[in-house]
Amino acid sequence: MTVRVGVVGVGMMGQDHIRRLTRVLSGVEVVAVSDVDAERARAVADGLRPATGPARVFGSGEELIGSGGVDAVLICSWGETHEQYVLASLAAGMPVFCEKPLATTPEACRRILDAESRLGRRLVQVGYMRRYDAAYRALREVVRSGDIGLPLLMHCTHRNSSVPDWYAGDSMITDTAVHEIDLVRWLFDEEIAAASVFAPRRSRHGGELQDPLVLLLEMVSGLLVDVEISVNIRYGYDIRGEVVGEDGTVALGDASPIRVRRAGLAADRVPVDWRERFVRAYDVELQEWVDAVAGDGQLGPSAWDGYAATVVSAAALEALRTGTRVPVALADRPALYEK
Amino acid sequence: MTVRVGVVGVGMMGQDHIRRLTRVLSGVEVVAVSDVDAERARAVADGLRPATGPARVFGSGEELIGSGGVDAVLICSWGETHEQYVLASLAAGMPVFCEKPLATTPEACRRILDAESRLGRRLVQVGYMRRYDAAYRALREVVRSGDIGLPLLMHCTHRNSSVPDWYAGDSMITDTAVHEIDLVRWLFDEEIAAASVFAPRRSRHGGELQDPLVLLLEMVSGLLVDVEISVNIRYGYDIRGEVVGEDGTVALGDASPIRVRRAGLAADRVPVDWRERFVRAYDVELQEWVDAVAGDGQLGPSAWDGYAATVVSAAALEALRTGTRVPVALADRPALYEK
Amino acid sequence: MTVRVGVVGVGMMGQDHIRRLTRVLSGVEVVAVSDVDAERARAVADGLRPATGPARVFGSGEELIGSGGVDAVLICSWGETHEQYVLASLAAGMPVFCEKPLATTPEACRRILDAESRLGRRLVQVGYMRRYDAAYRALREVVRSGDIGLPLLMHCTHRNSSVPDWYAGDSMITDTAVHEIDLVRWLFDEEIAAASVFAPRRSRHGGELQDPLVLLLEMVSGLLVDVEISVNIRYGYDIRGEVVGEDGTVALGDASPIRVRRAGLAADRVPVDWRERFVRAYDVELQEWVDAVAGDGQLGPSAWDGYAATVVSAAALEALRTGTRVPVALADRPALYEK
Amino acid sequence: MTVRVGVVGVGMMGQDHIRRLTRVLSGVEVVAVSDVDAERARAVADGLRPATGPARVFGSGEELIGSGGVDAVLICSWGETHEQYVLASLAAGMPVFCEKPLATTPEACRRILDAESRLGRRLVQVGYMRRYDAAYRALREVVRSGDIGLPLLMHCTHRNSSVPDWYAGDSMITDTAVHEIDLVRWLFDEEIAAASVFAPRRSRHGGELQDPLVLLLEMVSGLLVDVEISVNIRYGYDIRGEVVGEDGTVALGDASPIRVRRAGLAADRVPVDWRERFVRAYDVELQEWVDAVAGDGQLGPSAWDGYAATVVSAAALEALRTGTRVPVALADRPALYEK
Repeated sequence: MTVRVGVVGVGMMGQDHIRRLTRVLSGVEVVAVSDVDAERARAVADGLRPATGPARVFGSGEELIGSGGVDAVLICSWGETHEQYVLASLAAGMPVFCEKPLATTPEACRRILDAESRLGRRLVQVGYMRRYDAAYRALREVVRSGDIGLPLLMHCTHRNSSVPDWYAGDSMITDTAVHEIDLVRWLFDEEIAAASVFAPRRSRHGGELQDPLVLLLEMVSGLLVDVEISVNIRYGYDIRGEVVGEDGTVALGDASPIRVRRAGLAADRVPVDWRERFVRAYDVELQEWVDAVAGDGQLGPSAWDGYAATVVSAAALEALRTGTRVPVALADRPALYEK
Repeated sequence: MTVRVGVVGVGMMGQDHIRRLTRVLSGVEVVAVSDVDAERARAVADGLRPATGPARVFGSGEELIGSGGVDAVLICSWGETHEQYVLASLAAGMPVFCEKPLATTPEACRRILDAESRLGRRLVQVGYMRRYDAAYRALREVVRSGDIGLPLLMHCTHRNSSVPDWYAGDSMITDTAVHEIDLVRWLFDEEIAAASVFAPRRSRHGGELQDPLVLLLEMVSGLLVDVEISVNIRYGYDIRGEVVGEDGTVALGDASPIRVRRAGLAADRVPVDWRERFVRAYDVELQEWVDAVAGDGQLGPSAWDGYAATVVSAAALEALRTGTRVPVALADRPALYEK
Repeated sequence: MTVRVGVVGVGMMGQDHIRRLTRVLSGVEVVAVSDVDAERARAVADGLRPATGPARVFGSGEELIGSGGVDAVLICSWGETHEQYVLASLAAGMPVFCEKPLATTPEACRRILDAESRLGRRLVQVGYMRRYDAAYRALREVVRSGDIGLPLLMHCTHRNSSVPDWYAGDSMITDTAVHEIDLVRWLFDEEIAAASVFAPRRSRHGGELQDPLVLLLEMVSGLLVDVEISVNIRYGYDIRGEVVGEDGTVALGDASPIRVRRAGLAADRVPVDWRERFVRAYDVELQEWVDAVAGDGQLGPSAWDGYAATVVSAAALEALRTGTRVPVALADRPALYEK
Repeated sequence: MTVRVGVVGVGMMGQDHIRRLTRVLSGVEVVAVSDVDAERARAVADGLRPATGPARVFGSGEELIGSGGVDAVLICSWGETHEQYVLASLAAGMPVFCEKPLATTPEACRRILDAESRLGRRLVQVGYMRRYDAAYRALREVVRSGDIGLPLLMHCTHRNSSVPDWYAGDSMITDTAVHEIDLVRWLFDEEIAAASVFAPRRSRHGGELQDPLVLLLEMVSGLLVDVEISVNIRYGYDIRGEVVGEDGTVALGDASPIRVRRAGLAADRVPVDWRERFVRAYDVELQEWVDAVAGDGQLGPSAWDGYAATVVSAAALEALRTGTRVPVALADRPALYEK
């Protein structure tokens, strides 16, 4: 079976996912697109030639979802619009992959939880791609194996070389740290109980941004996670993580493809940006989603995961604003999302 | 366009490529198979459901090639049969991907060169997958950048944990070292001029095998390559390479996804076998081949590359038998294979 | 000139320093010892044969200091006794090396500052040996070079395989983290302004100990330092540190002498304990002290450094007890300790 | 006991050893010097102030050896003069440390073996300092532990950033590779049976020098050692070694004190030269020698080791000149040098 996907939002991320679906992955074609910019939607559609005929262009995500020729929806539009498209997909009973965030407020996320719960089966997957990274998966296996004993601490480093113009203060949490927020929930299979944020001396590269930050996450078990967030570090994109257990630790490797000895140094490479570092994770993420939609696999991060990430992000933002430790208050987990 | 591939030979390698073509890659389907074992061919075909209907089963590679419903051929049969299927593909004017070796003797390879030259365009690609490995590609970029000066030496390590029962003395060269033989021709863009082989103390794990071996390859420019071939090293599959230039060196990294600190050690992982180490290289190799067949890219290793690897392997085998340095005598390169 | 040293306190640490002074270093001999255990003092003296005759044994540190045949004093006795011996050395105008801590309370340290200030010249050095470690020195050079921009953050890891029986709750700060407390003051050449402590889930190996801890140190400039303190991590002694600057980072290396590939792993070694890791730092520390006493070099960590470490330790202990952020209140720095 | 050492030859190496003996090590003083350049000898002596009075200056090594006030001799003069001073030391029954080479010809070495054998006890130690390097010692322990099975191969890399003006063709073997020649005899506790040399494309930095070279050493057991010798590699001083056993390998680590992340790279440091890399090995070498002379330890590399290294070097030089494999013909080992 070939899964026919409609893509809502064909900006940079949408176009990259379309390239992935049409040039890299198996068992899928992109048959429809929509975008707030009709011209852009048309241009992207013109670049596509699915086996079933030209890709169709729709004036809105809702029209695309309701059009009948689509098996599943991929939402890459602006975050503020995610809720409406996810709800429309649920109303149509259609599998939907929604790029992060699921929605921009806890309340919006809960409306999605409610809708999906009423439906009684999972249709929503949220785009937290680190769960598909081979290194994080290997790390998680070690944590779960018990080889390092019970995990007690985790140290995370999230460094960007630089950030785009639109990037503002909240983005440090909602765009950047949110990856670690989802990651540790998945890694340790438990919820986050509280967040604190510390603001050290600022980098001259950050302009008005409080860059870097240190985020402290307390898990329900007492496990403590610290996250360095530096978004103008200049030297590259550097994602690191070390889980400290009772008997040892497991860390992401410095996995450089080559090592150059030159001019007094033996140097490994650092990825330029997230595209280079996580390109394979995105491939695996969407391939597994396509396979799941086709009935041959399981969906990934759920609407509950999207909700929890949004609630923790909100707590971290409040911690940043107030300089206090902010407890995380999650709603009861609906039965649909029990494990 | 979806490329319709017929697979000749559906043993372990053929089945793995079919999985890749049907479950991993884009723009391709497997529509036909043949095998010396008709039952196996049938079983494999039954597992396939291309969009265009059930995969067809043929009694011979020649029948498959001549059947009309196939755009390109993938040869994964026993090495002795490669020549006949490649020639049949050429006769049919059909693109053909042939797993290594192109053919088992220099003479057989030359018959293929002649046939393809008469045709006047390239249809053959040989399965040397290391050229598609991201680390080797990064290494080659550094070599070509001039950052380390002219390359003078290369040290290679080719270690297997163990080898299967059928693996015999010649396999050390024709199955194992042949990867480095092709690699250095590609890496340095020049031919190999002579080969010597040295036989150290034997491993107790090798049985009657002279394991390990050290192969010395002299390139036309004087560049010298040494290759350690150890095929029962037990600890894992370890492929390493370092190019020594006038101003520095570039080496493959020890790219472990994770690092575990435990019991007195800070340990990186070594791949278990070639599947783990080169899985992505195979994916990229076949995707690029599919794209080239579809008119959107270039073919990889040519029949000339397959011929040269076979001639150098023969020289290395003679060097192993005689304990002498054996010059490599290549035929003139037909115009079709000029760069 | 050969410096004649008297050692006060010849337990494990004292004996190790005596071995160092007599068997490893240059320009020094141990001519006198004292210990609360007279028998032990006698036994240690019997093992010494300085060029100037047998080592003398004294009933108290004060007697040793006042005996006349000693050029400098090395204090390795129980921490509670440090103050009295340092004050006695100052009263005698004699150079004194005092193992950490300088004294056990801020008030005791201030009495020493006052005494040395009245004297008007430095005679006291405190035993913070990390300042003499080659790796930390290289790291500090990079920080000071400006190559990574202004330092903004530092991540430290202080892991012990296990701890002795006498080790109790406060030891996490006063015996273990105190090394980082001194280190960062030296590394960044500024004082610590506040301390917070976080207590994650406990290790089952720690018994009643709150192990691990995370200590957060705020420097006067806003630079933020986090220190993981794990003292029962089982796998080895692992001291790490990474300074995060505006343009890059510098970290201690994983400096394993060898790398063993075996059984699926490529493994580096982790030191067993602090003796293995810092043996050279102790050698350099004492050699530089001996040279300084002989007039050929400069004294290291001062009484002010000892005082500051004690004040910060007290703040960290209060932070641990109260769960709050505790500001560090240092006295005015006497002129003698200006740079 | 303080060992009184006389130093014959106070050029760069001699002065460095004097610094070591007088400023770094324990239990030793330098009481006499001689040099072919009387003025230099005087200047060096003037810088010394041993406890026993000013250092004496002698017109010749023989006079120094016969002077009566010296317990042991350290020979750092020009290689051609080593034989005469070693023989003079033996004639005087005096312990002698001779920098490499023991003597410049196999015949000269044999005269020393004969003289020492007649004496019936070992007095000579030859300056092969790698045996005292902590990393090589750790590597040897792993080899001897059996953890990697029987050793079958070893890969060595000996790279210098550049070489001084006096460095000529033979130096590649007699000054550079001779370290590996001694090293592998010690590491594997067996003799070298044959040598071959391969000359790849030359570096433009080498002028008339055949740089690099690859030296192949066959040990008596069949163990094969390859040594890359590159002496103008520009990027630093890089000594590497990996022993390949039946079950695994052990290699020297890339032991960088720090790791700097900057400008797209995560970079370790490479030592500038042999002084930086082996400074500690020289310290340990001479301290252990001093201790042995004082009766508290064992002598290191013997005259037999010096002889064997000279014979193998001569074979390697012949291999380089003739392009052939040259067997190594050692005399019978005198009983004095049996283990």
